[in-house]
Amino acid sequence: MELPTRESLKPLFEPKSVALIGASHKLHKVGGALARNALSSSFSGQIYPVNPNLKTLFGHRVYRDLNEVPEVVDLVEIAVPGSAVPRVLLEAAQKGVKAAIIVSSGFAEIGNFELQEELAKISHRYGIRILGPNCFGLINTAVGLDLTFSFTQAIKGSISFISQSGAMCCGTLDYAFQKGIGFSKFINLGNKCDVDEADALIYLSEDPQTKAIALYIEGIRDGRRFMAAAKEASKNKPIIGIKAGLTEAGARAALSHTGSLANRKELVDAAFLQSGVVRVDDIEDLIGGALALAWQPPPRGTRIGIITNAGGLGVTVADWCQILDLKVPVFSEEMRSKLRAVLPEIAATANPVDMTGDADFDRYKAVSQILLESEEVDLLIAIFTSQGLVTSYGPAQAISETANKTRKPVLAMLMGGSSIEQGRRILIQNEIPVYHFPEKIAIAAKALTQLRSLRRHSSDK
Amino acid sequence: MELPTRESLKPLFEPKSVALIGASHKLHKVGGALARNALSSSFSGQIYPVNPNLKTLFGHRVYRDLNEVPEVVDLVEIAVPGSAVPRVLLEAAQKGVKAAIIVSSGFAEIGNFELQEELAKISHRYGIRILGPNCFGLINTAVGLDLTFSFTQAIKGSISFISQSGAMCCGTLDYAFQKGIGFSKFINLGNKCDVDEADALIYLSEDPQTKAIALYIEGIRDGRRFMAAAKEASKNKPIIGIKAGLTEAGARAALSHTGSLANRKELVDAAFLQSGVVRVDDIEDLIGGALALAWQPPPRGTRIGIITNAGGLGVTVADWCQILDLKVPVFSEEMRSKLRAVLPEIAATANPVDMTGDADFDRYKAVSQILLESEEVDLLIAIFTSQGLVTSYGPAQAISETANKTRKPVLAMLMGGSSIEQGRRILIQNEIPVYHFPEKIAIAAKALTQLRSLRRHSSDK
Repeated sequence: MELPTRESLKPLFEPKSVALIGASHKLHKVGGALARNALSSSFSGQIYPVNPNLKTLFGHRVYRDLNEVPEVVDLVEIAVPGSAVPRVLLEAAQKGVKAAIIVSSGFAEIGNFELQEELAKISHRYGIRILGPNCFGLINTAVGLDLTFSFTQAIKGSISFISQSGAMCCGTLDYAFQKGIGFSKFINLGNKCDVDEADALIYLSEDPQTKAIALYIEGIRDGRRFMAAAKEASKNKPIIGIKAGLTEAGARAALSHTGSLANRKELVDAAFLQSGVVRVDDIEDLIGGALALAWQPPPRGTRIGIITNAGGLGVTVADWCQILDLKVPVFSEEMRSKLRAVLPEIAATANPVDMTGDADFDRYKAVSQILLESEEVDLLIAIFTSQGLVTSYGPAQAISETANKTRKPVLAMLMGGSSIEQGRRILIQNEIPVYHFPEKIAIAAKALTQLRSLRRHSSDK
Repeated sequence: MELPTRESLKPLFEPKSVALIGASHKLHKVGGALARNALSSSFSGQIYPVNPNLKTLFGHRVYRDLNEVPEVVDLVEIAVPGSAVPRVLLEAAQKGVKAAIIVSSGFAEIGNFELQEELAKISHRYGIRILGPNCFGLINTAVGLDLTFSFTQAIKGSISFISQSGAMCCGTLDYAFQKGIGFSKFINLGNKCDVDEADALIYLSEDPQTKAIALYIEGIRDGRRFMAAAKEASKNKPIIGIKAGLTEAGARAALSHTGSLANRKELVDAAFLQSGVVRVDDIEDLIGGALALAWQPPPRGTRIGIITNAGGLGVTVADWCQILDLKVPVFSEEMRSKLRAVLPEIAATANPVDMTGDADFDRYKAVSQILLESEEVDLLIAIFTSQGLVTSYGPAQAISETANKTRKPVLAMLMGGSSIEQGRRILIQNEIPVYHFPEKIAIAAKALTQLRSLRRHSSDK
């Protein structure tokens, strides 16, 4: 199985200079939104807007064509009408440009396979790597480069996100921005005439800013190539993925959406397992799971310690852990006596530890420390809901301080509305993933525990 | 099976006058927070703060004891230390007070069963109905009465919420406030020395402001009584419930939290089925499902029509519908030709209907109308994610207008962050439930479809 070299993908993901072909001042159009994002980003390399009908754009000089641009750029981003794309791409390839992002539509997604084939041929002949066509572009927050037409910015972070669907990118970016979740690379593959999931994985596998990779997949053309790349990349980075279209109804929708063929669930399960990819079923869990994988280390086992200031939430989280085959062991008498020493008499110590409603900084700190230092716990889930007595500040501070001193993973669940906002921000700043309901935190804990067994499994092969 | 009369519960839920025994000015304590909430609510009846050590409280006259209060109140709310509660309760009962809310703790929850038994005896002897002890109180938004010590207000709405756990009440209220979700009655049962789930259900079954009932249950003492009451109430109102502690780990936690005994999942499933209660597993789904049941009618069948401006979200929602055994039928050629007439050529019409990224008011309106008028669709799921071209305003308006003219249920899924806020508010104002991810909207759709079969099932018995 021949995989691309990481080197061959650098001009696409880390260009030193970029030409925007079809840049315009019409902000409600793709060419305008692209230019605004690229030109207002903090990128320190050169960006050359190209448009024969403009002299300046947002204060920048505009170039008539690639010939006028004073250097051979690493990357061209093309937003001209679909039919004009092959000519523009060929010109760039012939000048020695090494990579192209084609946002223009009008290709395979509307049945125009011939036009798309022309792009693939140029890529093959000249070695120019192509992202797209019909794509949303990419963002590299490490170098401050936004080459999308997104209306939302990406926060700098450590998750890299790869999606075939452009709309999924928009929704995810906007959701993540509001939640304070950041990205390293944010990549929309679009029609995948050249660069696909396998290429993106190979590039990201050694990207120093990427701590976890999230994949939204509708269809994989070359399953073996994908698996080889995923297996390679998962040695270095945790990968979490969702394969949409696994049911008959979903597969039919995927076929009409991106022309992706159905995959049987069992096949996808086996493929993900063999290539070391954690599989989830919902987009919320893709993001929530990626956060856990990026921010927290994999646990040594599946024994979950649960601490809470609200008994009922402890009960439902324990339920969900067990539904997902995680263990919630009863603590030893030795451990329980340590817990009793720092807890009021009515507190429950067996696991979940119900610290009762007035638990504040001290109790969260003492109890989380006891659990994390114990041989009986592999992963800590800390739960808080405001009951009017204690704000989320103290508990969030305590959880953060303890989590920062341990090598065991810590996840937090805060239930509520505005009363938990302050605590949520503190935890997120300390890279402790925050969830709001039992099912979702249990799924994230499960993803973390799976990582270890997946790595063992794929290294055996 | 003897069930309470609704009449006997009215003094508790709809008192004409209330005495707050143990009202104080210490806002960081239960007696202060209670008094603040009760005295600042818009209730038109009389509220009498009682405390021998105060003359006035927040500008209101304070009474020395119940003898000084100029009338026999319907309800006393008691927030004195636990050991003093029996004396205060007895005095009220002897005066002819018909109901009591006991927020004081120090009873069964700390193993003090004898003290709690004293309350039960007084209730039995004098016929005074008791909510609690060790409870958070109740809210009746219809009469503007807040008898809790909550730090968050309840918005007026049509869901009634019953929970054994007080912390669950705090978290739910705060979450719901932020989401704009309102309640009719909000009830925390606490230790249930008298009033329990069955009583609350009987009262709510004919409450005109309640359109759906959400139940958080840890333990049921008298399963047959619960089932009889639920069966009775579910004839009038949709009921959705979560039974926490169904796994071994959860059951252990529930035992230590509220002394609730384990119930096997199969038993709970059967009990819910026979009594017409929709069962969900997560608190998020309890609230999301209750919203669907309160705001939307049950569908006639399980055929889901999906419309979207983002192909990938259509795929994953279709997947989740099928995972939950809902149907996503391929539309007839006749229907598809109607859809083609209002859609661009590249749109997908089979179901999901992918209206493509620039779908705005007109397209959402035309397509949702065609689906809702069709014999091929029982329930409509409308999906939107912002792609920078169209704001959420137009689609939300269109969905609302169409939904208001149909008897079929409509649910909306908006994915994103700040870009969907406006649309979310419009939909919520029009009583169209809004979800943010595929799994959650599919679970809500499932809850609606279950209602019909549950009603058929329980009426057969």
